[in-house]
Amino acid sequence: MQRILTAELPANVGRRVRIAGWLQQQRQLSRVTFAVVRDRGGLAQVVVEEAGARDAVARLAPETVVEVEGEVVETPQAPGGVELHHPEARVIAPALEAPPIDLRRPALKEQLPTRLTHAAVALRHPRARARFALVAASLAGYRAALDALGFVEITTPKLVGSAIEGGANVFEVDYFGRPAYLAQSPQLYKQTMVGAFERVYECGPAFRAEPHDTARHLAEFMSLDLEVGFIEDYRAVMRVAREAVAGMADAVRSRASASVDLLGIVVPDVPAEIPAVHFTDAQRLIERDTGREVVGEPDLSPADERWLGDWTTREHGSDLLFVVGYPMEKRPFYTHPDPGQPGFSWSFDLLFRGVELLTGGQRLHRYDDYVEALVARGLSAEPFRAYLEAFRYGMPPHGGFGMALERWVAQLTGVSNIRDARLFPRDRTRLDP
Amino acid sequence: MQRILTAELPANVGRRVRIAGWLQQQRQLSRVTFAVVRDRGGLAQVVVEEAGARDAVARLAPETVVEVEGEVVETPQAPGGVELHHPEARVIAPALEAPPIDLRRPALKEQLPTRLTHAAVALRHPRARARFALVAASLAGYRAALDALGFVEITTPKLVGSAIEGGANVFEVDYFGRPAYLAQSPQLYKQTMVGAFERVYECGPAFRAEPHDTARHLAEFMSLDLEVGFIEDYRAVMRVAREAVAGMADAVRSRASASVDLLGIVVPDVPAEIPAVHFTDAQRLIERDTGREVVGEPDLSPADERWLGDWTTREHGSDLLFVVGYPMEKRPFYTHPDPGQPGFSWSFDLLFRGVELLTGGQRLHRYDDYVEALVARGLSAEPFRAYLEAFRYGMPPHGGFGMALERWVAQLTGVSNIRDARLFPRDRTRLDP
Repeated sequence: MQRILTAELPANVGRRVRIAGWLQQQRQLSRVTFAVVRDRGGLAQVVVEEAGARDAVARLAPETVVEVEGEVVETPQAPGGVELHHPEARVIAPALEAPPIDLRRPALKEQLPTRLTHAAVALRHPRARARFALVAASLAGYRAALDALGFVEITTPKLVGSAIEGGANVFEVDYFGRPAYLAQSPQLYKQTMVGAFERVYECGPAFRAEPHDTARHLAEFMSLDLEVGFIEDYRAVMRVAREAVAGMADAVRSRASASVDLLGIVVPDVPAEIPAVHFTDAQRLIERDTGREVVGEPDLSPADERWLGDWTTREHGSDLLFVVGYPMEKRPFYTHPDPGQPGFSWSFDLLFRGVELLTGGQRLHRYDDYVEALVARGLSAEPFRAYLEAFRYGMPPHGGFGMALERWVAQLTGVSNIRDARLFPRDRTRLDP
Repeated sequence: MQRILTAELPANVGRRVRIAGWLQQQRQLSRVTFAVVRDRGGLAQVVVEEAGARDAVARLAPETVVEVEGEVVETPQAPGGVELHHPEARVIAPALEAPPIDLRRPALKEQLPTRLTHAAVALRHPRARARFALVAASLAGYRAALDALGFVEITTPKLVGSAIEGGANVFEVDYFGRPAYLAQSPQLYKQTMVGAFERVYECGPAFRAEPHDTARHLAEFMSLDLEVGFIEDYRAVMRVAREAVAGMADAVRSRASASVDLLGIVVPDVPAEIPAVHFTDAQRLIERDTGREVVGEPDLSPADERWLGDWTTREHGSDLLFVVGYPMEKRPFYTHPDPGQPGFSWSFDLLFRGVELLTGGQRLHRYDDYVEALVARGLSAEPFRAYLEAFRYGMPPHGGFGMALERWVAQLTGVSNIRDARLFPRDRTRLDP
């Protein structure tokens, strides 16, 4: 008999079927045992009445892998509205003892370090699974939105020869006896690939040797990057960012609706045009409202971002806000300055519920401008030789952004620590599992 | 005026339009100059007749970024069947001099090292671009095939705590002062995630410190991995592999048909059931035909694989062949032995045109079997603690495979060196660009 999923049971009332999964829990009542079997689609309640079978079930540890044949009976009070009656069960694989994570609870009670140490088990919980179903749906939505705009997916190296983009916070690798580094972003590669494909994106790991243990940072994260050429200005990049985020939200709704329901989260409505505020105006608003002296600071603090999140909800009814025109001093050398506002740039952040979701902007595109920008920052042009070659031989105006997928998922699901938005997070101390 | 792509010109005959792209070449005839502009969609020929404009064009280096307004005229003898007449052109960004790669040729003449050193330019060539359009289409096809089968996309860490899977050929990383390693595959993670999602896949980088410089190996490659639970046996994994490869071939045809045409390649027809031969039978066939003494060898050589590729074409009219039942001694500890044939396994390779495309099989799934397998190989269980936990708490029969995307693309396009199947390849000596 072909296995069916627990989610297919309601369509099979009255039939004898076979399911398979993990024994999530069992409740022994005086005359009956309810066994709950979990598979990738959900849960099913199995009603065991025969005394020998009840004894056999009672001896099984939670998480034993079982298959059960039984008759599907409509039972309005059961989870999912159906039960399996008259079961015949077989153990497919044993569980040696009760697991270190109690998967029977509606929500896990274990603290984060325990959940991470026992991730292989903790991730079996339906709410944990649901979070990562959102991750998968978000990735699919990001790609679909960009495919529809004519973007080409690229794969760039994570092993790079120079720690040129940032210098600090970079992991060093022993590369056949000489130093190499783990890429902090695909920035330089995706820019040069505008010369080949005009519109490129990549979803891949990025690495930051973050010396601080915070709830917002990971040593390895999934970076969703893109770069688009032949733009009129940075606002064209903001429009693409809007499409990308809307694609992610749409895919979460359409591909992971059961997970959205299970987690009880609100997927943002992405406005056709996301509200935008200039960096200096944002600072003035914050200063006027809070009295904190922020005007003149070169960046926004997390508190500033939270304030802007509340303000956007209040003023615009939006979960998303672009802050544009960040000061040049906090932006990397390839950032395009704002010619109309010295010291400020054509770059932006997109805030999602008061947290920075992505950072982007227009880039320099003329060779001479790059040489000048590197000199101004006291950087040698030599490590950038291959990168600069793209600009030597004609590059159109272009821009792009980078977004940490984990930030999106953390904000979407409201988890307080970004480690809960990654299957196997990496930080200063955690390398295993 | 809104920019249109060169590919849209035939639909705009008689209209005045604007295109933008790179000046790929110019031919000065006695009374007219033909300028060819390249954009992401193709090429367009611009007819320049006015003397001053001809002089201006003559001064431009190839790869100058230009925009051109002109009238679309049907011209059967022109490439694409149309030309732009009465142009008005503007330089968007200069090229400083002629590039180190001659992009005007129908196919690049530069040798591989030159092309790799100047990748940012060489990848602009339409044939190079076409190869990477196949890469993007293949990735999309892989994911679509697996999404349709209920798989969940996962993202597992590339920084790992122990060099447990292989030991040799692993890159060491300075991880906040202690050693970490770059993952050679997501093997252990994807297996444990069968416990959560039953069916998982990942497309991500994998790293091998290959000490040899061959045309078949890369230090960093794109690994397409999957793992599937609740299987009857290894043949269920072969059926999923068939679907994945068929999905890739279908997507190449449907999403990258222009690139297929430009490169003149033959996309394989993937049979509903890919032919399969047992490892020992394959060796007997090779020995009988070639006289080479291969029976008893623990693995197939590249020459053996090539012979099998020819044999499959001849006998089965197929580009693809499964070789099943490889000897245990050449397979990793998690491989499921064939209980009916001591010394042999329930693993397989899939050959594509005589080259190994993917390696997979059924895995062990009982905790006790793992402990025994590790002891038998003299491995300590300690580094595997988190991995083994999945098996302690119930894991169904499962299996999967890993495939290097670059192998697929190299075989599909017939390039002789796998470096041509990756945008920025990494090997013993090459870290830049």
